[in-house]
Amino acid sequence: MRPRVVIVGGGFAGLHAAKTLRSEQVDVTLIDRRNHHVFQPLLYQVATAGLSAIDIAEPIRRILRKQKNTSVQLAEVVSIDLVARCVVLSTGDRVKYDYLIVATGAADSYFGHEDWERHAPGLKSIEDALEVRRRVLFAFEQAELNDDPEQRRALLTFVVVGGGPTGAELAGALAELARHTLVDEFRRFHPGDARIVLVEAGDRVLPGFPPGLSVRALRQLERLGVEVRTGTPVTEVDGDGIRLGERRIACRTVLWAAGVAASRLGSSLGVELDRSGRVKVNADLTIAGHPEVFVVGDLAHVVQDGKQLPGVAPAAIQMGRHAAESIAGSSRGEPAPPFRYVDRGTMATLGRSSAIAVIRGARLWGLPAWLAWLFIHILFLIGFRNRVVVLFEWARSYLTYSRSARLILYPGDSD
Amino acid sequence: MRPRVVIVGGGFAGLHAAKTLRSEQVDVTLIDRRNHHVFQPLLYQVATAGLSAIDIAEPIRRILRKQKNTSVQLAEVVSIDLVARCVVLSTGDRVKYDYLIVATGAADSYFGHEDWERHAPGLKSIEDALEVRRRVLFAFEQAELNDDPEQRRALLTFVVVGGGPTGAELAGALAELARHTLVDEFRRFHPGDARIVLVEAGDRVLPGFPPGLSVRALRQLERLGVEVRTGTPVTEVDGDGIRLGERRIACRTVLWAAGVAASRLGSSLGVELDRSGRVKVNADLTIAGHPEVFVVGDLAHVVQDGKQLPGVAPAAIQMGRHAAESIAGSSRGEPAPPFRYVDRGTMATLGRSSAIAVIRGARLWGLPAWLAWLFIHILFLIGFRNRVVVLFEWARSYLTYSRSARLILYPGDSD
Repeated sequence: MRPRVVIVGGGFAGLHAAKTLRSEQVDVTLIDRRNHHVFQPLLYQVATAGLSAIDIAEPIRRILRKQKNTSVQLAEVVSIDLVARCVVLSTGDRVKYDYLIVATGAADSYFGHEDWERHAPGLKSIEDALEVRRRVLFAFEQAELNDDPEQRRALLTFVVVGGGPTGAELAGALAELARHTLVDEFRRFHPGDARIVLVEAGDRVLPGFPPGLSVRALRQLERLGVEVRTGTPVTEVDGDGIRLGERRIACRTVLWAAGVAASRLGSSLGVELDRSGRVKVNADLTIAGHPEVFVVGDLAHVVQDGKQLPGVAPAAIQMGRHAAESIAGSSRGEPAPPFRYVDRGTMATLGRSSAIAVIRGARLWGLPAWLAWLFIHILFLIGFRNRVVVLFEWARSYLTYSRSARLILYPGDSD
Repeated sequence: MRPRVVIVGGGFAGLHAAKTLRSEQVDVTLIDRRNHHVFQPLLYQVATAGLSAIDIAEPIRRILRKQKNTSVQLAEVVSIDLVARCVVLSTGDRVKYDYLIVATGAADSYFGHEDWERHAPGLKSIEDALEVRRRVLFAFEQAELNDDPEQRRALLTFVVVGGGPTGAELAGALAELARHTLVDEFRRFHPGDARIVLVEAGDRVLPGFPPGLSVRALRQLERLGVEVRTGTPVTEVDGDGIRLGERRIACRTVLWAAGVAASRLGSSLGVELDRSGRVKVNADLTIAGHPEVFVVGDLAHVVQDGKQLPGVAPAAIQMGRHAAESIAGSSRGEPAPPFRYVDRGTMATLGRSSAIAVIRGARLWGLPAWLAWLFIHILFLIGFRNRVVVLFEWARSYLTYSRSARLILYPGDSD
């Protein structure tokens, strides 16, 4: 009988693990609680109405349809039974494995203030992005109906918490939405007067980049009209605003890009976790005592050259492939090699024609960095349709500043 | 002071009324509870994953942004005070008018069985279409997880109630989705085995067309693999199936395209309504005793040449324009002329390369009707972007049978 490989999670790590196994003599089952893979680096563009949800998401089943050794199940895995070697679904059903790859990623962390979540949605799924879009567009609509200057001010103040790539990209896109896209559309206020505040607890934005690039990013954000507040952590978030140390900012919309907490499934493995709930794995990405169980992607805590690997797509892809190759080798009796992350670069975009990037050690900024960003994101998008449509939307929005996906949809309202 | 014109509803009738007033010396306020205008004739393509929501919807505010005499408000009108001449919003706020155009359209009617609604969603809004899409795609996913042959059969049975254009187009598109798009993607059943049943209480499908075209439509639906059941009304709908006279069909997905009920706002006008709740209007589309109040679109009951006007987009557009022109004339002291609907044609599409149409009296079917359908729908779509993207999606799906918008999204699930 062929070994059964179960992969939990259809993000970058899980999907690339499955693809790597396509010609191997194994039976693969990929389980995800959503029916689609999401290109997470572009979620902020869905949140700011530049792209449609379907432009950056693709049914997992469709991506893997020609891979005959693989079946896809839409189901939620609630725990893992390492002794019986099976995963347990929310329905109670059990799926047996010979090899397991756990790739359930990370959710937002509110650092113990879970009550903040309802006032400050994060940006991890398509649903999250649509919720952010709904809140942002609805705030502008409410400002048009409200004649009280103070309330209108709060409606037109948007705070993004977290100065990493997601937060910086989100703040930049919000500024462009307000200053350019919505121009001419309101009669009682100027959308360009909207205030976009980016809050970072550390001493600079984009702390994952060299300090020189952080400074360039800061200048570009300010040029876009984003107020950047560094060095002060958020101490309060409620429906009327946030508190930064001594100061309070009155605002109706707070967006969260500050911290990640690993998926809860990691805790059911019974092995050591780090502070964020990530699973401490062996050098070959397996867990202690279980050479048949791999943890990959944002759920894995991997230290290399004294530094923890970042939660980025290339790291997840490389881990997923490594786990799959190890399984393929192991079924041929080969020993599992250690994993080594190859950092080919990292980048963040800041409005049109501007980005910062470190690519194979070289530092880029401005237009060259933006072109590199554009090229790489189009290249890695899944599906011909998505590449064509996203390029079209970007070209159009570059030329006209318009954004297509500006629907306010009310879930559950079927009237 | 310039006359204040309030338009309630941003569908075809309301939107075209507003556009017609763009150069007049009036102040226009368009109020809608949604932020977007929807191209309703293509809702069934969103429901069957062929198009994305944003391809057929556009923010009303954006469409009217250059019209300086017009402001748009996202708000819900709950009643109309004819004496004080104002509309009352759900917030309690009142908006005064000198002229009023009521264009709030129609919702689904369950003929007194309102409990059926939750088992059988209709197709009137983008939210409806996304709900239908979610149910259809989820049924296929559940079938892949279910090993019980009877349950799987029920999961793969889709019943569409109502044999008018919406029902017929929906059934045809569902058949194509199952037989072509999903092929190769499931491992435990053949999606082509799905059963699509179209139920019509009357004696033929598409009763609004000449009998000869109904027969052609029936044949085309059967060629697509749709089971058509005419002459039997539905007497029961629950979570496990429907009853047609003596027979029960076990199915998990029922879609409703059977009847329309006019918007409840009509009843607050205190004038005579027809059985479906439509407002009986004067020949000039005003209501009895109130020459300043117009009712247009699907909400208006208009009889012409002994026949009631159909609830189609061209009728709504013509009524909206007529009301606006009457208001423009009236503010110059001209009398209001009677409304006369000019029927330029009607059409329904039945899968790829096939449609039926009556255009200026000429009957078309097959490919010519389909090409006419395609040309007219692209022409009337609002926005350059939508035309380009929809043409691209149609060309792609014509060549590859693929459908882009296959996301199952869970509203309210922000985890």
